[in-house]
Amino acid sequence: MADNTHEGARVAVIMGSSSDWETMKEACRMLDRFAIVYTKEVISAHRTPGRMAEFAHQARSQGIGVIIAGAGGAAHLPGMVAAQTTLPVIGVPVKSHALSGVDSLLSIVQMPAGIPVATTAIGASGATNAGLLAASILSINDPRLAQALDDYRAELARSVEASNAKLV
Amino acid sequence: MADNTHEGARVAVIMGSSSDWETMKEACRMLDRFAIVYTKEVISAHRTPGRMAEFAHQARSQGIGVIIAGAGGAAHLPGMVAAQTTLPVIGVPVKSHALSGVDSLLSIVQMPAGIPVATTAIGASGATNAGLLAASILSINDPRLAQALDDYRAELARSVEASNAKLV
Amino acid sequence: MADNTHEGARVAVIMGSSSDWETMKEACRMLDRFAIVYTKEVISAHRTPGRMAEFAHQARSQGIGVIIAGAGGAAHLPGMVAAQTTLPVIGVPVKSHALSGVDSLLSIVQMPAGIPVATTAIGASGATNAGLLAASILSINDPRLAQALDDYRAELARSVEASNAKLV
Amino acid sequence: MADNTHEGARVAVIMGSSSDWETMKEACRMLDRFAIVYTKEVISAHRTPGRMAEFAHQARSQGIGVIIAGAGGAAHLPGMVAAQTTLPVIGVPVKSHALSGVDSLLSIVQMPAGIPVATTAIGASGATNAGLLAASILSINDPRLAQALDDYRAELARSVEASNAKLV
Amino acid sequence: MADNTHEGARVAVIMGSSSDWETMKEACRMLDRFAIVYTKEVISAHRTPGRMAEFAHQARSQGIGVIIAGAGGAAHLPGMVAAQTTLPVIGVPVKSHALSGVDSLLSIVQMPAGIPVATTAIGASGATNAGLLAASILSINDPRLAQALDDYRAELARSVEASNAKLV
Amino acid sequence: MADNTHEGARVAVIMGSSSDWETMKEACRMLDRFAIVYTKEVISAHRTPGRMAEFAHQARSQGIGVIIAGAGGAAHLPGMVAAQTTLPVIGVPVKSHALSGVDSLLSIVQMPAGIPVATTAIGASGATNAGLLAASILSINDPRLAQALDDYRAELARSVEASNAKLV
Amino acid sequence: MADNTHEGARVAVIMGSSSDWETMKEACRMLDRFAIVYTKEVISAHRTPGRMAEFAHQARSQGIGVIIAGAGGAAHLPGMVAAQTTLPVIGVPVKSHALSGVDSLLSIVQMPAGIPVATTAIGASGATNAGLLAASILSINDPRLAQALDDYRAELARSVEASNAKLV
Amino acid sequence: MADNTHEGARVAVIMGSSSDWETMKEACRMLDRFAIVYTKEVISAHRTPGRMAEFAHQARSQGIGVIIAGAGGAAHLPGMVAAQTTLPVIGVPVKSHALSGVDSLLSIVQMPAGIPVATTAIGASGATNAGLLAASILSINDPRLAQALDDYRAELARSVEASNAKLV
Repeated sequence: MADNTHEGARVAVIMGSSSDWETMKEACRMLDRFAIVYTKEVISAHRTPGRMAEFAHQARSQGIGVIIAGAGGAAHLPGMVAAQTTLPVIGVPVKSHALSGVDSLLSIVQMPAGIPVATTAIGASGATNAGLLAASILSINDPRLAQALDDYRAELARSVEASNAKLV
Repeated sequence: MADNTHEGARVAVIMGSSSDWETMKEACRMLDRFAIVYTKEVISAHRTPGRMAEFAHQARSQGIGVIIAGAGGAAHLPGMVAAQTTLPVIGVPVKSHALSGVDSLLSIVQMPAGIPVATTAIGASGATNAGLLAASILSINDPRLAQALDDYRAELARSVEASNAKLV
Repeated sequence: MADNTHEGARVAVIMGSSSDWETMKEACRMLDRFAIVYTKEVISAHRTPGRMAEFAHQARSQGIGVIIAGAGGAAHLPGMVAAQTTLPVIGVPVKSHALSGVDSLLSIVQMPAGIPVATTAIGASGATNAGLLAASILSINDPRLAQALDDYRAELARSVEASNAKLV
Repeated sequence: MADNTHEGARVAVIMGSSSDWETMKEACRMLDRFAIVYTKEVISAHRTPGRMAEFAHQARSQGIGVIIAGAGGAAHLPGMVAAQTTLPVIGVPVKSHALSGVDSLLSIVQMPAGIPVATTAIGASGATNAGLLAASILSINDPRLAQALDDYRAELARSVEASNAKLV
Repeated sequence: MADNTHEGARVAVIMGSSSDWETMKEACRMLDRFAIVYTKEVISAHRTPGRMAEFAHQARSQGIGVIIAGAGGAAHLPGMVAAQTTLPVIGVPVKSHALSGVDSLLSIVQMPAGIPVATTAIGASGATNAGLLAASILSINDPRLAQALDDYRAELARSVEASNAKLV
Repeated sequence: MADNTHEGARVAVIMGSSSDWETMKEACRMLDRFAIVYTKEVISAHRTPGRMAEFAHQARSQGIGVIIAGAGGAAHLPGMVAAQTTLPVIGVPVKSHALSGVDSLLSIVQMPAGIPVATTAIGASGATNAGLLAASILSINDPRLAQALDDYRAELARSVEASNAKLV
Repeated sequence: MADNTHEGARVAVIMGSSSDWETMKEACRMLDRFAIVYTKEVISAHRTPGRMAEFAHQARSQGIGVIIAGAGGAAHLPGMVAAQTTLPVIGVPVKSHALSGVDSLLSIVQMPAGIPVATTAIGASGATNAGLLAASILSINDPRLAQALDDYRAELARSVEASNAKLV
Repeated sequence: MADNTHEGARVAVIMGSSSDWETMKEACRMLDRFAIVYTKEVISAHRTPGRMAEFAHQARSQGIGVIIAGAGGAAHLPGMVAAQTTLPVIGVPVKSHALSGVDSLLSIVQMPAGIPVATTAIGASGATNAGLLAASILSINDPRLAQALDDYRAELARSVEASNAKLV
């Protein structure tokens, strides 16, 4: 794990299985884009519940501000981490084999009153948006980041206009 | 909790909220019918994760053979208990407010390879069957219980025949 | 609207229709509990798109840190506000008449890469959690709020233990 | 965009992303078949909300009679355009990655009372029918177009009869 | 039927059963609001297929411009009318007993390429919007109607602002 | 059961539970209307599998021509009877508590190649149609019944026309 | 069509599009196996409604006993044929592009009381079973066919036993 | 079948078709890992109902403790075996062609009160977990097996930690 942790990380990206990395790397790509330091780690709610509890309990004191957790199927990781920290937890439903992520989505989003998980879309779009949402949250007290997000939006708008050339 | 624990319990019935009791008491009714000693307790994966871990880790050494866990919505209790014990865990999807238990069912049944949860039907039928399934599991090494289950089946058959009188 | 705005608000609670208030007041209840100042307003993506754009564009400069937006059916409000601000937007799917909020949930959560919405559960639980999530986000830089959230969690745990008395 | 606009266009075909073009070109193919002049443009509700508002507000005065809008996932484009014009808006749910267009369909069709969107089928069939529906709408006051639609129907009928040869 | 037909009707409102009237009267209410003359009639695709064919074939020549068809369950009426006229047909999925209108929606919206049906939301909102959509279609060549639709939108916006008083 | 069997019965109406009678009596009502002699009996695939096998194996030799079987939830009765007779079996999905009959429908209709079940709609409409379908099947060789079915259709058509008076 | 009709046909196999043939040929394969004479034809509810009406009205008088109708998407063919004949109509939901046949299934099976359609499983299994169901219906008055169906079942049983060799 | 039976088997693995073997072999792999003796056999509820009844009635007396049954579509095998034995029956929903196993899952899990089936996840994960659940059940009275399950869990945890190396 040593390789995946970073001094001064503001965001932690965790996922239930290394097979979720294909999806979750999109979150990291966004964090990289905004120069937000983060850690990344495979933590399984079901296979390493002890490590999960340790991670969740220590996150705030280690300087983490936002946790991004991706999982598929009976996706318990985001909710169980949220149950053991009061930091904001963003849950990314990874597309599952049989049910295309409907199971992942409902397992993550339908949390009971008391323990919130900020859920994004199923799959890679949701992972990208988890990275952006973390940046957005951190931007509340960071004008530089707020400006960078504005720049990103302007870039998105320009890409739309440019894409008109493809309608042939 | 003291009131709900019993010396010599073979089954533990737990649920994520006292609002699940209306459903889960059907499991207890079945255990009572077969004279199986059990404990019952509200344990929330999200609100009392520490108690959940403690419960799961101690269950086998305290003589419990089967755990029945009911929960609704993003129902993490059965799976998270299963992650922390190797006893058989039976999960009962409690009917949820918005989605009628589809979320509960998928959150419980779609467990990843490695951590099984024995899932029953949504709602009261599932709770009844969770009690019966516990009895069935314990009957493998208990001929008296096997006979009692046979008697119960015969009773079910008789009730079907008797119900023909209602087709008017 | 004058009555619903407040000097120094950190959170804005908006909803697509006054019929969503029954659900969304749970978010306000949570904000009240944590003494977080907020505004509340009916803003309809479909009936007042101009007001929506104005609100979204001004929110950050008016000192708002987090936006909570509730809507039902083809619930475009959270996503369209998110498209016009880089503040974090929390979307609450209000339970709809025909489809129990499945339409609301999918319309809110399935946002394309680039524009995140932090989605919570369908209905009142989701509204409660939206309030908590806003508190959680603001707690990153507010130790008093972080402590208050810890206290709330402890209270939740005690309520679980107390509820065992109801299993009769 | 200049390339995609046409003097005297009666129909505007817009879509949320250039990746929707594969689907939406079927609408254009139908408009071409009936010699209906149209413009086509990528307009994103989420990435270019300002351009969307401008487009919607100007459409009627620019001579457009019918707008066809295709989008996928949390497909807000048709509804948000409909919110900013009183022209008839036809919404085409583009098949989405994870949910096969169920999210697109519900986000488009489940509009609240007050702001209608004329929704067609998911995917290419829906795009084809959007083109036909625009022709049908314009045919109310255009006997030539009404006749052309009749001819098209006769052709469809002949193609069915001819296809019997394939049942071998 | 005589009572339900009107000289100079521009819109025909039909429905598969008189039990659909509770929903479909919302379409009529909208048409009344915009002073659009219409006929209304129960026509069943399954019970009166001959009458349905006759109605569809004659509609255009009788001066009808738009057909609104509501039906529930295996809702074949909108699609079968559309198969027998080239006028625009608006389909309203009526909420069904067992499946809440999901069956009605899919039966209406998933039309094959070649025969479009302009589908609105399930239930009363969809019926209201069917009336508005008909007005919108007729407004293309009717500046008075276009103005009336603008006035209606302004009224909707005012009602949103007024509803803020209810957030208490 | 004696009361429910009839000399010369051509149709057998069976159901998994007496609670299904509320639905299944609509099938009997139709059979009564067409003067088709039938038996009715509660037979449970799960609680009386032996009786089910006996019933299925004897049905043809006892003069039964068509079997109507209603069941809800994991509705195995129609399929398991079909597995043990080569008579046509009509399956009626009874509306279930949690899932509104979607489970019943899929359990009945999704039979593997080799063992057909003729499935009708969920609930009372499906039961009515099961009775009509039995009549239709028997009408192939019974001109009187064919005529009676024609008369019934004419009556349905008249009832549609009469119902126009209700559109007020 | 001439090639597909046969003197003395007892069953008619129709389908909404020649693209359904890949599925529907399984029904024909079964009819061939039982030496049941049949016709086959592409008849589209939407593209050839006139031919559909003609076909349905003439079927009984032309000696047809059972109609098998396959269609996908908003699959109106089986129900609309059933609306215009009192012969038994078997509906086969063809697997659709976007929704895997869920739309086809609901459009076929959810018929209103009065007009039954005997629905089979989605896709090839359903087509096979439609052929078997037709044979089963005709077997009521045909001991030879009843015996052939018994033989087929015995063959199915033997194939199961033989397939044990594959479990390696 | 002889090849697939074993002296002293404690678990029986059955499946509705040899095509289910690809999935169900994962259950056998787990049983092999824990050195649990088992039999395996294709038994079809629909094609060999007699063999199914014989198997279920004899299982307990032949020393079987747990039955694992996999099936797809209208998956009646687990429930029908459970109806004819009081041993614990584990049901594995095999992924189906059209509906991805949703039909299999609902047909297996939604059993009525009285006849329990312990359901696992759709597909290979569910088969793996069925093997583990059988081991778990047998471990109640088998300390060696309990220890082996603990060892397996420790191995799972180590594999998670090792997989961090893949996040690149």
